[in-house]
Amino acid sequence: MTARKRVAILGSTGSIGTQALDVIARHRDEFAVVGLAAGRNVTLLREQARRFGVPVTSTAEEGAAGLLRVAVASEPEILLAATDGSVAFEAVFAAVERGIDVAVANKELIVAAGSLLVEAAARSGSHLLPVDSEHSAIFQCLLGEERATVETIVLTASGGPFWRMPVERMERADLDTALAHPTWRMGVKNTIDSATMMNKGLEVIEASRLFGFDGERIKIVVHPQSVAHGFVIFSDGSVKSQLAAPDMRVPIGYALSYPGRLKDSSDKDVLRALGAKQGEVSLRYEFEAPDPARFPCIRLAYEALAAGGTQPAVLSAANEVAVAAFVEGRIAFGNIPRVIEAVLAGSRPQEPSLRGVRTADSEARKAAGEIVEAIERQPR
Amino acid sequence: MTARKRVAILGSTGSIGTQALDVIARHRDEFAVVGLAAGRNVTLLREQARRFGVPVTSTAEEGAAGLLRVAVASEPEILLAATDGSVAFEAVFAAVERGIDVAVANKELIVAAGSLLVEAAARSGSHLLPVDSEHSAIFQCLLGEERATVETIVLTASGGPFWRMPVERMERADLDTALAHPTWRMGVKNTIDSATMMNKGLEVIEASRLFGFDGERIKIVVHPQSVAHGFVIFSDGSVKSQLAAPDMRVPIGYALSYPGRLKDSSDKDVLRALGAKQGEVSLRYEFEAPDPARFPCIRLAYEALAAGGTQPAVLSAANEVAVAAFVEGRIAFGNIPRVIEAVLAGSRPQEPSLRGVRTADSEARKAAGEIVEAIERQPR
Repeated sequence: MTARKRVAILGSTGSIGTQALDVIARHRDEFAVVGLAAGRNVTLLREQARRFGVPVTSTAEEGAAGLLRVAVASEPEILLAATDGSVAFEAVFAAVERGIDVAVANKELIVAAGSLLVEAAARSGSHLLPVDSEHSAIFQCLLGEERATVETIVLTASGGPFWRMPVERMERADLDTALAHPTWRMGVKNTIDSATMMNKGLEVIEASRLFGFDGERIKIVVHPQSVAHGFVIFSDGSVKSQLAAPDMRVPIGYALSYPGRLKDSSDKDVLRALGAKQGEVSLRYEFEAPDPARFPCIRLAYEALAAGGTQPAVLSAANEVAVAAFVEGRIAFGNIPRVIEAVLAGSRPQEPSLRGVRTADSEARKAAGEIVEAIERQPR
Repeated sequence: MTARKRVAILGSTGSIGTQALDVIARHRDEFAVVGLAAGRNVTLLREQARRFGVPVTSTAEEGAAGLLRVAVASEPEILLAATDGSVAFEAVFAAVERGIDVAVANKELIVAAGSLLVEAAARSGSHLLPVDSEHSAIFQCLLGEERATVETIVLTASGGPFWRMPVERMERADLDTALAHPTWRMGVKNTIDSATMMNKGLEVIEASRLFGFDGERIKIVVHPQSVAHGFVIFSDGSVKSQLAAPDMRVPIGYALSYPGRLKDSSDKDVLRALGAKQGEVSLRYEFEAPDPARFPCIRLAYEALAAGGTQPAVLSAANEVAVAAFVEGRIAFGNIPRVIEAVLAGSRPQEPSLRGVRTADSEARKAAGEIVEAIERQPR
């Protein structure tokens, strides 16, 4: 038996954290959990720590020192960064600087500070492993390939609940409609991001940071079946794709076990492995280009990426405020991109440093809040 | 400018040979053609030699010595083995033994003597590069992956002209119907092999030889659009696929330029790169499992592979005779697999050596000819 891989998790009680522990529970001989950090769900954290025999844990009460203890002092070989927001930025950077591999599920971290993170990883030799299914797909398609031969990378999108809805109806769509996602089960924020397709916009920025391609070489294709997660188009016209059932445990397991792959009792039936349901003898994949006029959030993300500096952080922060305002019934669905666009227009890109990103984030939240209030004051 | 890669071609006036020269003509700064061997089309060979400034050429008249001169004495870095049948076996082995990389388009070579070829390449360090689109797809999907993580490899099939034809009609299908292939343009023999799906059976054997997996781990899926050429299913449930327009010049160019990739003016439009036609804003891929009862040639190929030794060579030779008899109007379409099955049943697998393969081949042809005659004598 080979030694088990030492894993630490920041955000162990969240959606990604619990799914990662699911994967680890099925592969107890592959992994040892050496550290777990959670926010306020202390009961679940305790249960996880007991179940996996985890020596180092930390909760929100312990703040930055606790996160750092789990990320670095627990001496993991791989750290899963699965907290939301910017709370764990310092802890993740500390791990990267010591050459610890990081499975990155913290989207804000890549969007706001991705270039810093990639530079730090290049210096220390730490591997950054994407956890998002789309970025995991691109990562896998790039294995063994020379960077110079890559022409375009393509992220697939389910299209979300509004893919075929007329623009007028979409403008005034209510919360329940926006929350009805066709393929993936996710939290409220992610589901609304899927309805506006801002999730793809943010993923374009993440892809740019993780793989070092500018926005012009990163495209989005709608694929309602959500089986193919990404494509890499090479200079010779050849294309590679990675496919898997829409289950986050596949990319999580890949990130944790890289450069190996876990041995799961995978389906012997080829069509099932390609996404067919039990009993189906045929299956179909569809692909369609998104209509930029219907999904302005995609355009805004490309613009923020092109502007560079802190603008992606501004985009992400303004989006959070706008989505929260929609969820609270304060603004119409169609106003989400308007809030973000106004905030971006009022922000100047700054050099991204960890401090600069934090300042840009809080200023963007303040500006977005004021714009939401101004919209509320308008007669409906 | 880097030095041009030295290429020699056996079978330069055939379908694969001329397409390879097409690719080379578009990339004159990448390749130098150092040797060309053809059969009887001396006029075209002379024209090719003049156009590409080729120092060493050979025709059928010069026999084995001429092939050897082109394959080895011209000192290529890569040899494209694109002759039909077994005529160039010795020349290709000689190249492999000297560590020259070989792009293998000669199907009989892999089916009949693939294990010998792979062993010889392993000893000399020569790379064997598949030219078939399906095997090129698998090769590309395996790049950067550990062998132990591969569960299943999947070859796609267009399904051929008889994919949806009722068995009764198929049994008595005429030549014109069998020659109407939906996606690929190929010669008569290949098109009939596509109608019986023996082409896929032979490709399963080739895949087994090239990649070292037994038949149980190699599957066939019908994909009428012929854009995805193969899949690799990994142990963690993840799948990789390679896709490209159904144009042999893509896998030929890949084999010649490996480990690089050619720079072609590839389509900037993502859907076009994934196979959409000009103006289409959506596209669809379909996948279906083949019905073994309707395509007995597939079963026969798996059986020959499992029996091992010279049985794949027997299968291939008997198939050639049976297809020729059908094309000449001597036997019904439905009798093609019957001839092959009878020949296989009457042959004992021998250890495959180059000599053993030649003997098995000629004995299988003789036996198949006798069975064809017996069928002809039966009242229709």
